[in-house]
Amino acid sequence: MSEIDRELQVCDEAVTLAFSVLGKRWNGMIVATLGSGSTSFVALRRAVSGISDSVLSDRLAELALAGLVTRTVDAGPPVTVSYALTPSGESLLPILEQLGSWAVVNLSAPTD
Amino acid sequence: MSEIDRELQVCDEAVTLAFSVLGKRWNGMIVATLGSGSTSFVALRRAVSGISDSVLSDRLAELALAGLVTRTVDAGPPVTVSYALTPSGESLLPILEQLGSWAVVNLSAPTD
Repeated sequence: MSEIDRELQVCDEAVTLAFSVLGKRWNGMIVATLGSGSTSFVALRRAVSGISDSVLSDRLAELALAGLVTRTVDAGPPVTVSYALTPSGESLLPILEQLGSWAVVNLSAPTD
Repeated sequence: MSEIDRELQVCDEAVTLAFSVLGKRWNGMIVATLGSGSTSFVALRRAVSGISDSVLSDRLAELALAGLVTRTVDAGPPVTVSYALTPSGESLLPILEQLGSWAVVNLSAPTD
């Protein structure tokens, strides 16, 4: 394998790794939403419109396992559970922002 | 709705738009692979390891519809079909590269 082929392969593997988490529906949206700060489950479900309780619950567990989100339980009373980004999650935000700007310019339906 | 809420919503919609294309398995990989230049179907299938002929064919049609990929037929003989990025597709490459670098730092399995 040539040096260039190897570099390309490493680059592709990195992109594949990124999409192993972000390629799953809602995950990018959830991280983007948590970008505005620590949020309760209910507020998160309201912000990510269209997601069900069980799917949001699964996705939050996956994002926690991937080290992007933390879950904090406040014993209360009343008991409250909140979700927030880890530093890894935070570091994804500027890239998501660029991706959003790119999409608006390049994927919006043509108006003519 | 407050000004900040509206801005957040617009941002989330942009991210959702981005993932309407990139959230689908293989699409990010295909764009990243085409980043190295115009490629035949067979070479593309070899580069995107694990994808089947029919799925690659579907994804290329979707990416063409989204305006990110062009399909060029050279009458030959022999007839050859090649795929390349449009300027919209090209403009995604630096963001995919950042996403890849982010993933390598933040998603790789811990070694300790």
